[in-house]
Amino acid sequence: MDKQLLKIVKIGGNIINDEGALISFLKDFTELDAPKILVHGGGKRATEISEAMGLEPKMIAGRRVTDEATLEVVTMVYAGLLNKKITAQLQKMKCNALGLSGADANCILAHKRIVAEVDYGFAGDVDAINSGFIKVLLQNNITPVFCAITHDKNGQLLNTNADTIASEMAIAMSDFYEVQLNYVFELKGVLENIANKNSVIQHINLNKYERLIEDGIISEGMIPKLHNCFNALKRGVQKVNIGDASLIQKTTILFTELSLK
Amino acid sequence: MDKQLLKIVKIGGNIINDEGALISFLKDFTELDAPKILVHGGGKRATEISEAMGLEPKMIAGRRVTDEATLEVVTMVYAGLLNKKITAQLQKMKCNALGLSGADANCILAHKRIVAEVDYGFAGDVDAINSGFIKVLLQNNITPVFCAITHDKNGQLLNTNADTIASEMAIAMSDFYEVQLNYVFELKGVLENIANKNSVIQHINLNKYERLIEDGIISEGMIPKLHNCFNALKRGVQKVNIGDASLIQKTTILFTELSLK
Repeated sequence: MDKQLLKIVKIGGNIINDEGALISFLKDFTELDAPKILVHGGGKRATEISEAMGLEPKMIAGRRVTDEATLEVVTMVYAGLLNKKITAQLQKMKCNALGLSGADANCILAHKRIVAEVDYGFAGDVDAINSGFIKVLLQNNITPVFCAITHDKNGQLLNTNADTIASEMAIAMSDFYEVQLNYVFELKGVLENIANKNSVIQHINLNKYERLIEDGIISEGMIPKLHNCFNALKRGVQKVNIGDASLIQKTTILFTELSLK
Repeated sequence: MDKQLLKIVKIGGNIINDEGALISFLKDFTELDAPKILVHGGGKRATEISEAMGLEPKMIAGRRVTDEATLEVVTMVYAGLLNKKITAQLQKMKCNALGLSGADANCILAHKRIVAEVDYGFAGDVDAINSGFIKVLLQNNITPVFCAITHDKNGQLLNTNADTIASEMAIAMSDFYEVQLNYVFELKGVLENIANKNSVIQHINLNKYERLIEDGIISEGMIPKLHNCFNALKRGVQKVNIGDASLIQKTTILFTELSLK
């Protein structure tokens, strides 16, 4: 029997920071006809609240580190304020949303990142997704909305990359569904020339991805995003797309589609 | 067929404010052998964070009002920080907890409180509990953990009394379960004499409750709590108890048991 389609959409700070853009995106998201999951990143509110509380960003060797005070703020802002505001908006739009962190029902198990010489603080790398429970939610017509806070099942919450959560979730859910993973961000897709917003590379396969890195065409921030995309494709996800919010409306043909071959 | 037992426990700020007391309570809660639901109040963290952000408590006619800035803080602290910390701790203790606000899966629908002459700001009164979905969670061996944030299904989050949430939830769940509702707070029970911490009134029925109010024995804060208790008993809840954390351990016989007759 063919598997049912599941759409996973990840949104970043650019949409979250702009209330009008967020409402408009959520309307389009609500209208997706397949079972769906939303994964959201952070945005500038956490920085604003840290500043209002007089916290200084902690940097070690040029890297931003999630210290305990920062973890408290991102837990409050991502799992509390943003996640519940998005959930309440989706409920208004008659989408039966349920906001979740990775600790809830052990949905996303992670471990504190340990890399020789560098302490990343309370940053987590994903170990496992509770896909069985997420399937129960989808079967009850619930739309899970994940923030990027996970836990280690030892009582510790962890700040985790939202792109990675979306990709690991897509991989885990592909046991049950044909999964389409969509990364929505500020650009129309992966660009050939960063100065030209319309120079979207419409199709990237694994060979081309490696060439783009060699040629220095894709930039630093794009490399981990594309790594997440190809990791998903290699591990069973059917389709991965990158684009701006119009990707969800399907009013655009300008976005980047990724495939292994 | 006899209904299965469901235990609902509400904890207040006194336990949440003391990390040792909270961990100890959560251990006892985990060991409850029946399906269970936790409802938690706020505590002083929201006030501390408001102060750190330089927000002034808004008072109108001597009443604390939930203005927009306060709603943001309580949403962050209750639904984010406290709810996820409690959930992560319960997960560590092998209790499959799921943290929820009232917006999540439309679990608690409320409306903005409107009382002639007094604007309470973003304070919500409970209209309905999504008992069907909560039952699905319990049947999947999930322990729901509710914070006291609700929504109006029109996109507005609302700050709601945690005692009332516990009582309305107990009433709604009594369609499916034999419900025991436990209010855990700083005292051993309802006191005959507020100066004597051991003067617990061990049993209060509806007649005695009315006499206690008439005689001025129960204090201002206790009246709405007892109102919630008797409301629950009148509307199908089997048992209601009030006491300190030892109520859950069952190491005490000193607590207040409430009944209609």
